[in-house]
Amino acid sequence: MKSEIVKIAEGAKAASRLLLSLKTGLKNAILKKMARALIRSKSYIMKANEKDLKKARGRKLKAAFIDRLRLTDKRIKDMASSINEVAKLGDPVGTIEKLIKRPNGLQIRKTRVPIGVVLVIYESRPNVTADCIALCLKSGNSLILRGGSVAINSNIAIFDVLQKAASKMGLPKNSLNMIKTTDRKAVDIMLGLEGTIDLVIPRGGESLIKEVSKKSRIPVIKHYKGVCHVYVDEYADLNMAESISFNAKTQRPGVCNAMETLLVHKEVAARFLPSMAKRFVEAGVELRGCPLTRKILRRITVKPAKESDWLTEYLDLILSVKVVNNLEEAIDHINKYGTSHSDAIVTENHEYAMKFLTEVDSSSVYVNASTRFTDGYEFGKGAEIGISTDKLHARGPVGVEELTTYKYVIFGNGQVRK
Amino acid sequence: MKSEIVKIAEGAKAASRLLLSLKTGLKNAILKKMARALIRSKSYIMKANEKDLKKARGRKLKAAFIDRLRLTDKRIKDMASSINEVAKLGDPVGTIEKLIKRPNGLQIRKTRVPIGVVLVIYESRPNVTADCIALCLKSGNSLILRGGSVAINSNIAIFDVLQKAASKMGLPKNSLNMIKTTDRKAVDIMLGLEGTIDLVIPRGGESLIKEVSKKSRIPVIKHYKGVCHVYVDEYADLNMAESISFNAKTQRPGVCNAMETLLVHKEVAARFLPSMAKRFVEAGVELRGCPLTRKILRRITVKPAKESDWLTEYLDLILSVKVVNNLEEAIDHINKYGTSHSDAIVTENHEYAMKFLTEVDSSSVYVNASTRFTDGYEFGKGAEIGISTDKLHARGPVGVEELTTYKYVIFGNGQVRK
Repeated sequence: MKSEIVKIAEGAKAASRLLLSLKTGLKNAILKKMARALIRSKSYIMKANEKDLKKARGRKLKAAFIDRLRLTDKRIKDMASSINEVAKLGDPVGTIEKLIKRPNGLQIRKTRVPIGVVLVIYESRPNVTADCIALCLKSGNSLILRGGSVAINSNIAIFDVLQKAASKMGLPKNSLNMIKTTDRKAVDIMLGLEGTIDLVIPRGGESLIKEVSKKSRIPVIKHYKGVCHVYVDEYADLNMAESISFNAKTQRPGVCNAMETLLVHKEVAARFLPSMAKRFVEAGVELRGCPLTRKILRRITVKPAKESDWLTEYLDLILSVKVVNNLEEAIDHINKYGTSHSDAIVTENHEYAMKFLTEVDSSSVYVNASTRFTDGYEFGKGAEIGISTDKLHARGPVGVEELTTYKYVIFGNGQVRK
Repeated sequence: MKSEIVKIAEGAKAASRLLLSLKTGLKNAILKKMARALIRSKSYIMKANEKDLKKARGRKLKAAFIDRLRLTDKRIKDMASSINEVAKLGDPVGTIEKLIKRPNGLQIRKTRVPIGVVLVIYESRPNVTADCIALCLKSGNSLILRGGSVAINSNIAIFDVLQKAASKMGLPKNSLNMIKTTDRKAVDIMLGLEGTIDLVIPRGGESLIKEVSKKSRIPVIKHYKGVCHVYVDEYADLNMAESISFNAKTQRPGVCNAMETLLVHKEVAARFLPSMAKRFVEAGVELRGCPLTRKILRRITVKPAKESDWLTEYLDLILSVKVVNNLEEAIDHINKYGTSHSDAIVTENHEYAMKFLTEVDSSSVYVNASTRFTDGYEFGKGAEIGISTDKLHARGPVGVEELTTYKYVIFGNGQVRK
């Protein structure tokens, strides 16, 4: 198997050289063609998906899991329109970030360029296949996809349709690749191909991400969990705080930018918490609180929050609540227990807002808005390949721009160093 | 030892929070104070350096090595003026890279922020101590230094002088740290402190860099070797080509941006090589050539170049020479044997120049200029912490800007997600 995997990676590398000079117009034409092909091949894709669903039902996987796996008419249309959205985005490749003119006449252009070969390792959702293909094509990267076994038939069907459409339009051979074996050894082999593969993006559960970063010799952009906070400051507009907190927890609890812990300043806790808690309980949210929270909400069932609660990404209708003495304690709590994802303060005090925004060490920090906005589309980036919780290269939503890097292109007329 | 190292790292992390809101004016004042302290403590530092030199002479280390270790009056002055240069640079922290206004009224600011805690592991040259301190302070990062045992007394002396000066001016405690033990276990412990240390920069020989990247769970910015090329195209101005090639090889052969391989188009090889080779030989350069090069230069001693020559960073007055059939072959050679550092084409043909600049996958690509310009100062960045051969986060010279990352700071007035 090793030689086969290495051959795929080397093919992708060779293709990546050709992609460097692919014109924006052609990229967009290929994307649009792919979107149309997806719609046209709907029934073919859904038949493949049916195989995966049958297997999943046989293995008695959870309903929520099977739902994520299922492709419907609407979901295929959504995939296609997401590809069309990527076609509409600006092309980052070739943009000049900085132009430096030196006294010796050298003109130095800091220019955005593709990264090279990107490997995406993902789990169940088959729409990831289409998103990755669109984003890597637009950013001029070769792509190697390695999807999970649960969705393997759906992934292969989507890949084949898109790959065929792209190839008809003249996309260089081996630009798009899928590892179709589900043997786990394939991943280990790829993670050792530094120099050929330039970037690894694992998308999925925590254990997948941990395993990949541990084994990889290639740079990894990690998408760990999101333990997100909303802090209701003593100077908060409490109506606004209630609506933001409610939205951050309940609008879609299963995603990484949903709130997991609510922090409340002690001066407003007695006024804010009772009606807030009532609303949460009515929406089916289980509350776990610090001693003071439980005292204030003694008429409502609030379980005692354990140390582990502050660290937990529930991804569910569960919320931990803590009353804090001041802004500093809120910031310290977030920096200690948070995951550098998305955290918000609700306050009308400008100075406090700026302190929170500066000192909370997260990729996205909010004042007076819901944490739920951290995503590529909401940030105006079109689609995203994930939300990075790393600090280097890419933080927050990873879109077309984050899939590029830069080089210095230097124009001289004979300059030599003295 | 472990608990001691962990304590230092955690202290550095706590300090990094305070550095987030350090004002530019104070940073610059601290830098200037440090530069003055360095000059004032010259004799103290040189006494410590004498100890290192004595030990090195005793161990019969190479003259070039001992020279790099030696601190003179002038070298200490240079260190001080390098610190003053960093004080003059713009402060990247807080600059807004992009302002995104969304239809829902959210204002998203992509803002540059410090990385956090930076660990630098370096070998002999003691001036690295001062450079790293200046660059990390200006970029708002906490720093942990781990120098090699050869220069340990010089490093400690420089560190103590700068640290004392900074602390008098109010730099938060534990912002600057030096691991003073030379036990190698200390490095292994630090490389496992992901979450506390945010970035590792190894500076030194290839084996150090390889070892660090292999062991580290923390992101590493690598500074591998530079196998740099000059390609003399068929449309080159041959006088210019000669002066650029000569400069790239001989002006300072011991550095990473010096040329190691000269590529010449077959159409101009017979005209270009003889006088070029003569000049190299007169300057004491040993030539190693491909068969055609040797044929053209049959009156001069040219050793046959082996496959391994194309891969070698000589860092010395040795040059490998190859005649190529066309531009494509030159590009392929560089992408195959180069190290993504600095490569140049000499040509008057615009189309060929653009093809070379686009397709050569190096951090710095030149047309009609010497590769020797790849450095922080020449790129207008002031000092540099090294030259990255990685593709992610930082490519080429790593200065103050590359020691920062970004976060999204989002201002709302009650927005929730629908």
